[in-house]
Amino acid sequence: KFNAWLEEFHSIDIAEVLSELSDKELLQFYELTNYENMAIILEQAEEKTQVRLLRLIELEDETKLFSQMSTDNLTDIMGNLPFKERKELLNRMKNNKSGPVSNLLGYDTESAGGLMTTEYIALNEGLTIAQVLNKIKTIGITTEVIDTIYVLNDNKLVGIADLRNILAADEKSLLRDVTDYNVVSVLPNDDQEEISLLVAKYDLTAIPVVNRKDQLLGIITVDDIIDVIETENTEDMFRMVGVSEEESVHSSLKNSIKKRLPWLIINLATAFLASFTVGLFEDIIAQVVALAAAMPIVAGMGGNAGTQTLSVVIRGIALGEIDLRENWRFVFKEIGLGLINGAVTGLLTGIILYFQYGNPYLGLIIFLAMIGNLLIAGLAGFLIPLFLELIGVDPALASAIFVTTATDVFGFFIFLGLAKMMLGFIS
Amino acid sequence: KFNAWLEEFHSIDIAEVLSELSDKELLQFYELTNYENMAIILEQAEEKTQVRLLRLIELEDETKLFSQMSTDNLTDIMGNLPFKERKELLNRMKNNKSGPVSNLLGYDTESAGGLMTTEYIALNEGLTIAQVLNKIKTIGITTEVIDTIYVLNDNKLVGIADLRNILAADEKSLLRDVTDYNVVSVLPNDDQEEISLLVAKYDLTAIPVVNRKDQLLGIITVDDIIDVIETENTEDMFRMVGVSEEESVHSSLKNSIKKRLPWLIINLATAFLASFTVGLFEDIIAQVVALAAAMPIVAGMGGNAGTQTLSVVIRGIALGEIDLRENWRFVFKEIGLGLINGAVTGLLTGIILYFQYGNPYLGLIIFLAMIGNLLIAGLAGFLIPLFLELIGVDPALASAIFVTTATDVFGFFIFLGLAKMMLGFIS
Ligand SMILES: [Mg+2]
Ligand SMILES: [Mg+2]
Ligand SMILES: [Mg+2]
Ligand SMILES: [Mg+2]
Ligand SMILES: [Mg+2]
Ligand SMILES: [Mg+2]
Ligand SMILES: [Mg+2]
Ligand SMILES: [Mg+2]
Ligand SMILES: [Mg+2]
Ligand SMILES: [Mg+2]
Ligand SMILES: [Mg+2]
Ligand SMILES: [Mg+2]
Ligand SMILES: [Mg+2]
Repeated sequence: KFNAWLEEFHSIDIAEVLSELSDKELLQFYELTNYENMAIILEQAEEKTQVRLLRLIELEDETKLFSQMSTDNLTDIMGNLPFKERKELLNRMKNNKSGPVSNLLGYDTESAGGLMTTEYIALNEGLTIAQVLNKIKTIGITTEVIDTIYVLNDNKLVGIADLRNILAADEKSLLRDVTDYNVVSVLPNDDQEEISLLVAKYDLTAIPVVNRKDQLLGIITVDDIIDVIETENTEDMFRMVGVSEEESVHSSLKNSIKKRLPWLIINLATAFLASFTVGLFEDIIAQVVALAAAMPIVAGMGGNAGTQTLSVVIRGIALGEIDLRENWRFVFKEIGLGLINGAVTGLLTGIILYFQYGNPYLGLIIFLAMIGNLLIAGLAGFLIPLFLELIGVDPALASAIFVTTATDVFGFFIFLGLAKMMLGFIS
Repeated sequence: KFNAWLEEFHSIDIAEVLSELSDKELLQFYELTNYENMAIILEQAEEKTQVRLLRLIELEDETKLFSQMSTDNLTDIMGNLPFKERKELLNRMKNNKSGPVSNLLGYDTESAGGLMTTEYIALNEGLTIAQVLNKIKTIGITTEVIDTIYVLNDNKLVGIADLRNILAADEKSLLRDVTDYNVVSVLPNDDQEEISLLVAKYDLTAIPVVNRKDQLLGIITVDDIIDVIETENTEDMFRMVGVSEEESVHSSLKNSIKKRLPWLIINLATAFLASFTVGLFEDIIAQVVALAAAMPIVAGMGGNAGTQTLSVVIRGIALGEIDLRENWRFVFKEIGLGLINGAVTGLLTGIILYFQYGNPYLGLIIFLAMIGNLLIAGLAGFLIPLFLELIGVDPALASAIFVTTATDVFGFFIFLGLAKMMLGFIS
């Protein structure tokens, strides 16, 4: 009765409630729930809750739960268990489950292999539609994807067949008659970010993973691709400003400190570069203290213009819109953008400073400095992520910290350097 | 023959080539291609290319192309045509197409109604499985989703049936026997961002759109949801730093200026606030010019810490993890984070400045200022997006500009204010 009632809810909603339960309540829930329901719910639960429940129950029961799970989720769960327990569980599982899972455990979690599942329908192209329909009826119930049938020839993936076409076809015709031989697939070590771009581009509900011999190893379903997209987007946004992608608003204070403090210390080191640049001109500032008051404008504008360009570039790389070969074209645009935006905002600032301090040369200096500053901002916002990508580092990694350092250092240098050159006119 | 050859490619790949063609070449391509292929390719093409081709061909041919398209894509295309042409085309189209399309044209493009399509299978729960299978065979070929059948009772959406269960069921049993009556649906005016969270949470391949009477109006497919997710992510990342979501690395110089300059001018206005704050302390800086050299450290650290918190909050809001009711709990974490990160980086900075200038009080000032600064950074990074959301503005909108203004203004005020109070010890 409890189980019938449970089935009226979505498993993810129940899984979310589980994470709020104490160990004792969790065990009580487990005892009331049958293996089938428990497996579905546990698949959807947070890692922490998964591990917590598995700690509480016997190896034998774990094995029973695992037999009901799809191999991709099972692999993720087992990946979080201690090596010894994992080995013991694999030994206890049936071969048709332990085989795929121990294979999947070997892949990087952010690769195609780490995302794929083995619950798909793959049939030989020589089968008749009647045979195909029979197979689908029998094994379809346990697969993750039903609208696409993977078509094999000589154990190689050669195409895909749309269930719509299969259902509409004559029962005596062959699977090969409704097969689309133009199939998009990935290799097991391909990176999840690139895979997500393919799924988005070709509007797929699943993408097959094959080895170099074109043998089908698994499929990655679109629901898991959506999670990849969200994770990669979080990663980019966070890394850009020096936050670890594992943080969230729910992270503990201790965890947040551990994740952010290292980046703040790196930022501190770069801030000292800017401070050092200003220090070079201390004598000038002592004579014209208005320069100190204008410094935040130089830094603020350079920082904002730089991160504008940076965001466009990081997003362009993430969406596969920027290609290293055609980069140079964009550099010229950034130069033009820096010159024009710098001239407009520099003119405004120059006029205001002129009226504020009654000195036209101070206005001229900030006008010129702003042009130089926004030019640097555009170049740094464009070149820093591309340089990071070129040396094989994530282009988003702390790039905002590097960009603002560049705009601070060069911005102050241009501004205070010009002031030094024109000192006679402004002091 | 050309059409058979075309079918060996994915329509999106051909669509991408089309955007490179001149008008003349485009027309040549069009003339070689049959309506069916052309419709599929045109659905996938860029807006610009779609409009360009439609300019080149007759109304009658447009109508023929349109008859082959799914209603969601057709609505998007027609939305870009002049009102008069749109009306004329609707008149020429068959009723079973013009009806849905003119309905869909009425919805906001970022709402459920603007995203939905009308190519789904909805059947009465009283049908037998044999009848259901027959229907699927006939109409399945033209639907966007086949793995989910929408189940109606009295013209209301009451549940969904998984094709897997239908295929496995006895032919004499009823559709209601395999129906899941717990269905997740959205209303036509619901925002695309919230819909994408539901699709991600419940792992759906499509989500039904119903009116207040539970009548099924359409479905939104997961491929379109992926585009929504990418768009919304771009929007957040761009808006945060003052870039319009319509920009990309491929935007023209003129366009990029138009999109970014207004934000730079807003940023300039806020930078003057920081400049004004520093101006209040010009006499102090004139006496202790080392303060000017330390200012970039204050600004840089506050800005970075503030945008760290900001990114976590913006992402938390986007992923539906932050809820206004439970916010206050997180404020305390941000306060703790600011205090601790401020103390650690402040200590480091204080020690360095002490050795650099040989004055322990300067070190003490920066130590205290950094704590205050990072506290403000955490609070601003947390409260500004929430405040924006509260007043009904996109929480990402220019929030980095506001946060860095807050950290600049308060950071300088605390730092220079402390210096003024302790002037006797440092000058
Ligand atoms: Mg995995
Ligand atoms: Mg797509
Ligand atoms: Mg899933
Ligand atoms: Mg999965
Ligand atoms: Mg990654
Ligand atoms: Mg990435
Ligand atoms: Mg910096
Ligand atoms: Mg639309
Ligand atoms: Mg999901
Ligand atoms: Mg589509
Ligand atoms: Mg669509
Ligand atoms: Mg939006
Ligand atoms: Mg948004």
